Order: sequence, then structure tokens, then C-alpha cells
Amino acid sequence: MKKFAIGVDLGGTFIKAGIVDETGNIVLEDSIPTEAEKGPSHVIEQISKIVKKLAQNFDEGEILGVGIGAPGQVDPEGGVKYPPNFPGWTVVYLAKEVGKITGLKTIVDNDANVAAIGEAKFGAGKEHPNFIMVTLGTGIGGGIIIGGKIYRGPTGGAGEIGHVTINFNGPKCNCGNYGCAEAYVGQKYLSSWVAEELKANSNSKIIELISGDLSKIEPYIISLAAEQGDEFAINVWKKTGFYVGVMLASVMNLFDITVAIIGGGVAKAGKILFDSINETVKSRALKPIAEKAIVIPAMLGNKAGILGAGALAFEELTYTSV
Amino acid sequence: MKKFAIGVDLGGTFIKAGIVDETGNIVLEDSIPTEAEKGPSHVIEQISKIVKKLAQNFDEGEILGVGIGAPGQVDPEGGVKYPPNFPGWTVVYLAKEVGKITGLKTIVDNDANVAAIGEAKFGAGKEHPNFIMVTLGTGIGGGIIIGGKIYRGPTGGAGEIGHVTINFNGPKCNCGNYGCAEAYVGQKYLSSWVAEELKANSNSKIIELISGDLSKIEPYIISLAAEQGDEFAINVWKKTGFYVGVMLASVMNLFDITVAIIGGGVAKAGKILFDSINETVKSRALKPIAEKAIVIPAMLGNKAGILGAGALAFEELTYTSV
Repeated sequence: MKKFAIGVDLGGTFIKAGIVDETGNIVLEDSIPTEAEKGPSHVIEQISKIVKKLAQNFDEGEILGVGIGAPGQVDPEGGVKYPPNFPGWTVVYLAKEVGKITGLKTIVDNDANVAAIGEAKFGAGKEHPNFIMVTLGTGIGGGIIIGGKIYRGPTGGAGEIGHVTINFNGPKCNCGNYGCAEAYVGQKYLSSWVAEELKANSNSKIIELISGDLSKIEPYIISLAAEQGDEFAINVWKKTGFYVGVMLASVMNLFDITVAIIGGGVAKAGKILFDSINETVKSRALKPIAEKAIVIPAMLGNKAGILGAGALAFEELTYTSV
Repeated sequence: MKKFAIGVDLGGTFIKAGIVDETGNIVLEDSIPTEAEKGPSHVIEQISKIVKKLAQNFDEGEILGVGIGAPGQVDPEGGVKYPPNFPGWTVVYLAKEVGKITGLKTIVDNDANVAAIGEAKFGAGKEHPNFIMVTLGTGIGGGIIIGGKIYRGPTGGAGEIGHVTINFNGPKCNCGNYGCAEAYVGQKYLSSWVAEELKANSNSKIIELISGDLSKIEPYIISLAAEQGDEFAINVWKKTGFYVGVMLASVMNLFDITVAIIGGGVAKAGKILFDSINETVKSRALKPIAEKAIVIPAMLGNKAGILGAGALAFEELTYTSV
């Protein structure tokens, strides 16, 4: 019988879910508002509701179980801790609760790990047993795949590539440290140094695109300007690539891994960004690493959340019981 | 029957070896000149000679096999690659060759990993299933112990903590990168920035201790001055601790590991250095890591090479055949 998994992408505003087959096709898909403001029990109900809706009457094959990608930290017991923008959460055992309501085997992991697992099973990582997954968005998400498996570390907190220091004299990061990669490349930080530097580059097309309102700087605007040949904007992506590359060289040296897969909104900047990351890694990683290093784009795009969560279920539930 | 292993510490000048019991006692010990200049075959003979000498007539128990800690990189097949100061080496399968001559099961690993394995089995890591081993000497050696086992990475090159970038604008490192931790803390680099800063601190006791000859700066001299209350020297160890701490915060965040064990010549600087490393890690690592982080001294001292190599043999040879 054909096997399927339900992948759930838990976001702050919407819960997206889909039935995923073993080759990475989403055969059925739905979404429901998260209504996080109503507290954890309600979110558990919303997830269970969409899972049950998808599963009922599904007759194309066996549903192995449910994978959930959640924001925040997830401990080894499946406790989802303090996800940002989810009021009232301390530690919530999401998989256990959803499993109880739906009667389906359920597993949860943090969204950065889920993105890595998804690329490993269905995406750019299919041919690469070892890679570093980088998600460039609000922050920098990271996931380390070793021998085809996610490396979670002793307490489930591993892979925090965004909080690798790249310059101990650098700007203050949200986490309390100075000069984390995220403090250069996280969306808020990126917009902030770009705004600062624009003051001395008033002829950049970005100024026009944001009608002079520096609070409107967003990655897609910088990309728009870069596509129009704006030197300043092109340099923003070169610098961003440099920061990511410096971070990656350290991570590659530590894990002895030569492949990086880059996804997330900022990755849409494309070739200029990727060339710069690549060049930086090649010139900064240790020789045996640098010689083989490749930096490639993620493949799952905006379906990464559902597909990754489906992959998580396939990887972790196949041989375990409820 | 009591079980023993022979640990071999392959150095550029001397080969030190000992018979080690399962609790970390060296019951018999010897050394022989390496004579590396005579090429790999001769070094293989020297190692085999000292191993045979130790093993012959030993009747206190069973010798499980031989562990060798070697400089340079060691690939997963046991190929020792280009050890510094060993002329004529490309890739030498040291364990296989020594095993053939001695008839004893033999295994080899690089000396940074061996130091970590030694502390894990016999030293400061006995109570810590997960830790980062840091050896502060000519360079910065690193070894990552996860669940009691060394993490070698896909090609045996993992744990290069010395080549974690701590400042992308930093000084050029031997490896080609800029601002590696090693480019601040490796002995040569340390002596060089201390010499530079001494020019503006001519009242430091260090000047007196080196009779004004800046080429004579060595870690033990800085420690001597620090012990005499020299502010400049104390600050050198504080800064060194800061650099090590910045690097460790990144490594801890990535591996989700909260314990660091520090050994090597520079670690003799003691409390000032350790306090500074600790303080830096506590203020710079992610909160869940920082809260539990501890930085402790290695315990095996100048027997680390033999004991680590013995531990390697115990760990890896017990259940394998020749």
C-alpha cells in the first residue's frame, strides 16, 4: 500500500498542512488560522482539526503519521518552548497532545531542523548525506545533516548557526552577544545597516523604491534595485554573502562538511548573493574543505514547511509506535 | 585477566609510549627518538621497536592493542597526512604498518582527537558525556566528544576549533583565513601581538624578564609576570581568555554542548585565563547554553599523549579484529 505522512507547518498566523507522499508530492493541502492569541489548547485543537480534516476520507493509501514543524526550541521529549508570538506558552508537548486527539502517531521538531530534513529527503540535499542547511529570513535558521540524519545535540538545541560570532566587535544581537552572523544578516539587522549606509549613498535606486522612507527597506526591494543594476544594492548582497560565508567557513571547519544549502526569503537575492557566499567560503575555509565546498539553493520553496514536516514524519515515525 | 593497551605519542623529536591499564595508570613507560628526518619507514620502525620492547615479557595481563596519537590529519582509513616537521610523508598508513610489524591490533588518530578521548576516559571528561576539548599550544587543537564518542566528521577532519573565525577583520592566519581564533591565541600569534603591545607598555615586568628581547616572549614568561602582579601580563591572559571564550560560545551554540575542557601549555596560565574564558562564554553563548556552561582544566597534563592513545586503543579496539 502507498505510504503518506501529514506535514504541518505551524506559523504565527496560519497553520498549513498537507498529505505528502514518499517522493515529496503534496497530494492534498489545507490551511487554518492559528489564532495563537487564544492560547496553547486552542492551537492544539486547530492543528488537530486540520489534521483530522485531511485524514478523513483519505483512501489513496496508509497515513503513517503526522510531522509538525514548530517555531521556538523543541526539547528531546517534544516540548515546544516559548515560540515567539505564541502568548501563554511555556513548554507544550504538541506532538503528544495532537496524537491523543487525532489518534495518529505524531512528532514535532523546530522549523529550522524541519527545513533541513525536508531538503535532505525531497530537495537539494537528496544527493548529499552531509550538509548545512541555512534559512535566511527574520533570523538565520540552521540545521546540520550528518549521514542523512539531523544532528540535534544532547538537549535538542544544536545547529544555531545564526549565533556563530563572525566579529567580536560587531553589532549587538538580540541574543545578547555581539557580532553574531544574525546581527548582520537577520532581516531587521540587514535593513538597519542598509538604512544607515544609504544615508551616504543617496543616489541608490533603493531610495526611489522606498520613496525615501528608510523604514520600508525589505530584501525584495534591495533585490529589485540590484536587478536594475544599482551598484549599492548589488554591494548589499555581496556583503551579505560575505557575512554568511564567514559563518559557513567556521561551521564547515567544525563539522567537516562541505555542502551548504541556502533557503529562506533572503536567498531569493540569487546569483550575486550565492557567488559571494561561495567565494568567501572558498577563500576562508580550511583547504581540504574549501576545495570541495559547494553552496547551493534550497529547492522546496514555499512548500518547505509542509514537505519538511512530512519528511520528519517519514524519517522518524516509520519504525516507532505511538 | 586484567586488560592493558599500549599508548604511543608520536612527536616530532621523541616517540613516547606506555602500557596503560583500564583505569588510566601507566604501568610501564619508555621513549625513543623519532628521527623523523630519516623518513616514514624509519619512523614506523622506531614506533614498532618501542612497542615490541614494552610488550615483550609483559606478564601482568592481556595487551588489547596499540593506540597512536599522530600530528597532522588522519583520514577515516587511518592515513596520516602531511604531519608538520615529518619530511617525506604524503599519506602513511601508520596503524596498518605498525600492526604488521608488531602483530598487535593498532589504531591511529590525530593528537587533538586523542587528547579529547584521553580526557573522556581517564580525565576531566569522565563525568561529562559531551564536551569540547581545547588544547592551547602552538596552535589550537580541538576535539568534540558527543555521547562519550569523538565526533570525527565524514572525512575525519572535524573539530577544527582553532579555525573558527572570531573576527573577520582580524589578523591573517597560517591557514589563509583572517581572524581565526588561532590567529589570536596560537603561540606564535600570541607572542607577536604581545610584543606589539609591549612597545606601548614599557613598564611591564615582561620586558625585564626577557631582557628587552621581544623575540623571547613565551607563555611561561607572561605567566611569571602575571604571578608577580604585572597588570599588562594579567591583561594578556584576560584577552586570551576572551578570544577563546568567543570561539567557544560559537562552538557550544552549534553543538549544543555546555562543557569545555582546556589543556595545553597556555592553559597553565591558570585562574586568570579560566575566569576570563568562563565569563566570556557566560555572556556570549545562547542563554540555555550559558546557564549551564562550565570551563574546566584538563587533568592528564604531560601524560596526555600516552594516556589518550591508550584510551583510543581501549575505546576502538576492544570489539574489533586486526
